[in-house]
Amino acid sequence: MSQSVPETMRASVLYGANKLELETRPVPVPAPDEVLVKVKSVGVCGSDVHFYKEGRLGDWIVTQPLVLGHESGGEIVAVGADVDPARIGERVSVEPQHPSTTSAETMRGEYNLDPQMQFYAVPGTDGAFQEYVTIQSHFAYKISDQVSDDAAGLMEPLSVAIATARKGHFTVGDRVLITGGGPIGLLCAQIARAYGAREIIITDVSAQRRETAFKFGATSVIDPIAEDVSKLKLGVDAYVDASGASSAVVSGLYNVRPGGYAVIVGMGATEVSIPIPVVQNNEIWLTGIFRYNNTWPTAIDLVERGIVDLDGLVTNHYGLAQVGEALSSTTLPGVIKSVVHPYL
Amino acid sequence: MSQSVPETMRASVLYGANKLELETRPVPVPAPDEVLVKVKSVGVCGSDVHFYKEGRLGDWIVTQPLVLGHESGGEIVAVGADVDPARIGERVSVEPQHPSTTSAETMRGEYNLDPQMQFYAVPGTDGAFQEYVTIQSHFAYKISDQVSDDAAGLMEPLSVAIATARKGHFTVGDRVLITGGGPIGLLCAQIARAYGAREIIITDVSAQRRETAFKFGATSVIDPIAEDVSKLKLGVDAYVDASGASSAVVSGLYNVRPGGYAVIVGMGATEVSIPIPVVQNNEIWLTGIFRYNNTWPTAIDLVERGIVDLDGLVTNHYGLAQVGEALSSTTLPGVIKSVVHPYL
Amino acid sequence: MSQSVPETMRASVLYGANKLELETRPVPVPAPDEVLVKVKSVGVCGSDVHFYKEGRLGDWIVTQPLVLGHESGGEIVAVGADVDPARIGERVSVEPQHPSTTSAETMRGEYNLDPQMQFYAVPGTDGAFQEYVTIQSHFAYKISDQVSDDAAGLMEPLSVAIATARKGHFTVGDRVLITGGGPIGLLCAQIARAYGAREIIITDVSAQRRETAFKFGATSVIDPIAEDVSKLKLGVDAYVDASGASSAVVSGLYNVRPGGYAVIVGMGATEVSIPIPVVQNNEIWLTGIFRYNNTWPTAIDLVERGIVDLDGLVTNHYGLAQVGEALSSTTLPGVIKSVVHPYL
Amino acid sequence: MSQSVPETMRASVLYGANKLELETRPVPVPAPDEVLVKVKSVGVCGSDVHFYKEGRLGDWIVTQPLVLGHESGGEIVAVGADVDPARIGERVSVEPQHPSTTSAETMRGEYNLDPQMQFYAVPGTDGAFQEYVTIQSHFAYKISDQVSDDAAGLMEPLSVAIATARKGHFTVGDRVLITGGGPIGLLCAQIARAYGAREIIITDVSAQRRETAFKFGATSVIDPIAEDVSKLKLGVDAYVDASGASSAVVSGLYNVRPGGYAVIVGMGATEVSIPIPVVQNNEIWLTGIFRYNNTWPTAIDLVERGIVDLDGLVTNHYGLAQVGEALSSTTLPGVIKSVVHPYL
Repeated sequence: MSQSVPETMRASVLYGANKLELETRPVPVPAPDEVLVKVKSVGVCGSDVHFYKEGRLGDWIVTQPLVLGHESGGEIVAVGADVDPARIGERVSVEPQHPSTTSAETMRGEYNLDPQMQFYAVPGTDGAFQEYVTIQSHFAYKISDQVSDDAAGLMEPLSVAIATARKGHFTVGDRVLITGGGPIGLLCAQIARAYGAREIIITDVSAQRRETAFKFGATSVIDPIAEDVSKLKLGVDAYVDASGASSAVVSGLYNVRPGGYAVIVGMGATEVSIPIPVVQNNEIWLTGIFRYNNTWPTAIDLVERGIVDLDGLVTNHYGLAQVGEALSSTTLPGVIKSVVHPYL
Repeated sequence: MSQSVPETMRASVLYGANKLELETRPVPVPAPDEVLVKVKSVGVCGSDVHFYKEGRLGDWIVTQPLVLGHESGGEIVAVGADVDPARIGERVSVEPQHPSTTSAETMRGEYNLDPQMQFYAVPGTDGAFQEYVTIQSHFAYKISDQVSDDAAGLMEPLSVAIATARKGHFTVGDRVLITGGGPIGLLCAQIARAYGAREIIITDVSAQRRETAFKFGATSVIDPIAEDVSKLKLGVDAYVDASGASSAVVSGLYNVRPGGYAVIVGMGATEVSIPIPVVQNNEIWLTGIFRYNNTWPTAIDLVERGIVDLDGLVTNHYGLAQVGEALSSTTLPGVIKSVVHPYL
Repeated sequence: MSQSVPETMRASVLYGANKLELETRPVPVPAPDEVLVKVKSVGVCGSDVHFYKEGRLGDWIVTQPLVLGHESGGEIVAVGADVDPARIGERVSVEPQHPSTTSAETMRGEYNLDPQMQFYAVPGTDGAFQEYVTIQSHFAYKISDQVSDDAAGLMEPLSVAIATARKGHFTVGDRVLITGGGPIGLLCAQIARAYGAREIIITDVSAQRRETAFKFGATSVIDPIAEDVSKLKLGVDAYVDASGASSAVVSGLYNVRPGGYAVIVGMGATEVSIPIPVVQNNEIWLTGIFRYNNTWPTAIDLVERGIVDLDGLVTNHYGLAQVGEALSSTTLPGVIKSVVHPYL
Repeated sequence: MSQSVPETMRASVLYGANKLELETRPVPVPAPDEVLVKVKSVGVCGSDVHFYKEGRLGDWIVTQPLVLGHESGGEIVAVGADVDPARIGERVSVEPQHPSTTSAETMRGEYNLDPQMQFYAVPGTDGAFQEYVTIQSHFAYKISDQVSDDAAGLMEPLSVAIATARKGHFTVGDRVLITGGGPIGLLCAQIARAYGAREIIITDVSAQRRETAFKFGATSVIDPIAEDVSKLKLGVDAYVDASGASSAVVSGLYNVRPGGYAVIVGMGATEVSIPIPVVQNNEIWLTGIFRYNNTWPTAIDLVERGIVDLDGLVTNHYGLAQVGEALSSTTLPGVIKSVVHPYL
């Protein structure tokens, strides 16, 4: 059952490094347990930029046409056979995962680690830089009217920050260090504040980003060019790398208290020379985030209650014909978060 | 109050790399909350060997005379003013720690991470290669008659293995990979078995050590020269490095299942080039062991019930005049664990 | 695809308290993600007995014909469209659950708490006292040849014991008290031993059961008629009620150490007058078990390695025409576990 | 070393139910690891009221003269031999515990469960309704100037609420039910808000208390006389009893989601008839709070940041001669928290 849905749609398709085409494709048909979402807003993520600029991200290589974009919100316009048609018309945020339901990982609640995962905008599964997407019904989360379309899309990176908080055992009274003041760093800062952190220290080489950080929860900022962060010995409860820079990861580790947590969120660092005695003598727990599980209800709650500000992160908007521009925008001065509105 | 205790004793004192002297020193006097232990057996640990061969271990440097040895058992021969004199005559295993009682770490139960720790055989605190030692009464644990003197001393490295099991979340049915088949590797194997592991895989370059590993719990062994361990993708629940070799640490990480644990126990690896995406994409928890807390009751229980065999690890015995020989023995063929009997 | 499977089968159907009929029914047809299992052995559980004797269990009432039995093993004889036909011929143990895959409980790994659960032998879902059953493919676990048919079925109560161990945080060196020496008590004892418990104390009013308990892991036994268990103040790490007797639950709580665990497994106690200050002043964690999740791999491993003995629990065998007799057997002297072989 | 401290002081001493005497006693002398605190403010706790009205609290009976009061703050005026004299003049909040440092409980971080605990205002240890008290140096926590004397004292009940949050696993997005809108209920509500709870539901029979609850974090209130709370099936993540009423405990349990937490904080309920199937079928974790450990830094942080309001709870002030009046005030209309200023 559906609203009036056209047969074809526009899609921005990646054919390899720096090769994007705006194409006409059939509107996808929802499977019985899926809904069809008319996409209203899609955030641009660093991983999209990697695929666009390099044609790959780590071991994933773009060998077939791929639609990027996995931070999306929109409106349900059709439902599969097993889904309540009353959902049509609902504004939703999309959790862009499709895990197997029978793997050991999914069955113990870590469905993000499912080895058969199909994930938006990863080779094999198209993402959301197109007018319509399908997603399993339970991964399309209803949002209330006070949540904007952009915020609906940005529940995705917010979920990354929530997953980080859980892995980093953020709790009331914590001192948290975040290297990198980009969108993920700023979301981790907001989440640290929501979890009750008393000190939130952000490092970034950009003066503008450091300035911005104070708006999103930072209690102090550090310029890692001016100061050797590894010497500060801050003794924080949790350290988060949101920069993807190898040097940041190393310097951050020197700042974790005995028994504290270090969570790598940023992508980019591959082989990092880790000072093992620092990890070992302090029994630091070093881990990383690979997406998220069971985060959307928390994300939506925090935005609906006004505890996390997603709209304030959005600096640039683009239409579907401008996806390349959007993907190139992330390093421009003053840009925090760019979003694409596929209906434009 | 005390048994008849002499006024002086022999002690093997380190004056710098490869400089050991056998000296006569006053027998130490127990503080009010301490006991005086006549040392019967002291195991030789890799950290002792580092201090002996290099005059240092990481950031600790031997600048003052230092008595090595921290794996000790013996008999209580005198007690401080606040200790029940009935303890005199008790056979004990010594937990060689003296933490502050008021640090945040101690108060939350992680006294091993106490920053003011005084620990046997670390510069500033003498160890047990001498005839008598003092220790706080509650860190001298009563052992039953079926526990040998050597086993009393080896409760210490067994405690390292128990701490490893806890950090690695060992549980029934686990698959465990251990790189390094030396004494710590063999103790971790026995502990993995005690915790119910169904598969215990040990790697070691020595054929003899691989052969020995089967006696102590290994269900299979690997020669890391013959096989590229990083390629095996074993997907184990927990990985333990007991080798201190950087290459082992890296190859081990490739074998941890999503959400699994990697615990670095071996010392020696300093800067290790870690494949961050392996940690991140699998959300592996990487940590290390710095001594132990609250392990002795478990250690003693496992030995008393015959579940862990400590005596079977002891291959060489030395007297106090032979400490240098003992410290040089650890790399000899066929040697697993050397112990010093200070009364000899 | 299938082996030769008949169109009809015999089933033992409950029509209310003490009303069982042996009927001919169509053999069920596996859904696309299911397998069809020819049942070889089904254990008799206390909950089956409740339904049989009283026509109800707690809030569940038998208002429609119901096939009992949920501890089953057998052989795959046909598969649904989405299942690999190579599974036909496989000997399996059946996890008798069919949870929703989209509830919050399932998605966080607690699928046993899924509110839409369909579970064998609970009103609404037929169980295994019939010749053939269907189950989702991933809940039919392959067993090796050394596992008997009876043991295949008894993986189910073993799973209850494993769930208990997890909730009770059983670990190496623990002291565990179990009230009730029936099949679940004996399985909990075996599991406590597998998890490394050093002391396993079982209470039972039956001298014969106390005697039997020693064969399955008990290190000591108590007659609760002769001794007031509430006065013993054993200070155990974990207490398990496997009796369902209110008086046992209360007396057990007095025996938990500060910060320890109390897990209620036995069914039968409804309103129990709990001494709140005992729970509160000792910060005891009191909880209960409702089935299990993610236990089968561990259960099968423990049986295959010979660490848990299931066959030794089986004292009585019955054919499908004797289900009523089987359900009446559990209180006979000398009976531990009765099983039904539906092909008889 | 000390400021000018008199030799004697006034103390309010309990001699049995309803028998208080204002006496002159010697000012206590700090032990080497203690400080002497001039008491500025002491909160009145329900346990003080029990001792005053009934001469007992549970198994504790007042057989010897006892000074009540354990929620105290003040100024350090002298220090023991091992304490830095620079602490003299410091304004502090007192954690009124003196645990053994060597028990298993203390060594694993649960010093509140130490069996040899000496605690203010429990028979055997005098409390703070006197002009001066001694406490171990590390249990006298420095507070900043923006923390009032009353707030310094009320860090103690705030610590109870923090301990509750930890046991109840409060986290961002939680729904929390609190039965009882007295001082502890209101502190738990504030703490639930600090931990990020999205819904905080308070029940109280008093309309005035329900009204007040909204000021301290409640998002909704319930009159348990008008509504049968056990029927609401709220499915909260955590339930806290802060009433001590047996009926509240029972009704609250019906409102916990599967796998959720129930924490009993209120004292008074002794034998409570618990619906075991509710606990068992939902695998609820039921526990209680016995004081707290490692809470003061968090408590002080929350007050200093203005996240928790303690001063707003204080409705009545009394001098040392009015302790009886203070202890009788807690049930007066409009009273939330009464405090005693011993210098008055």
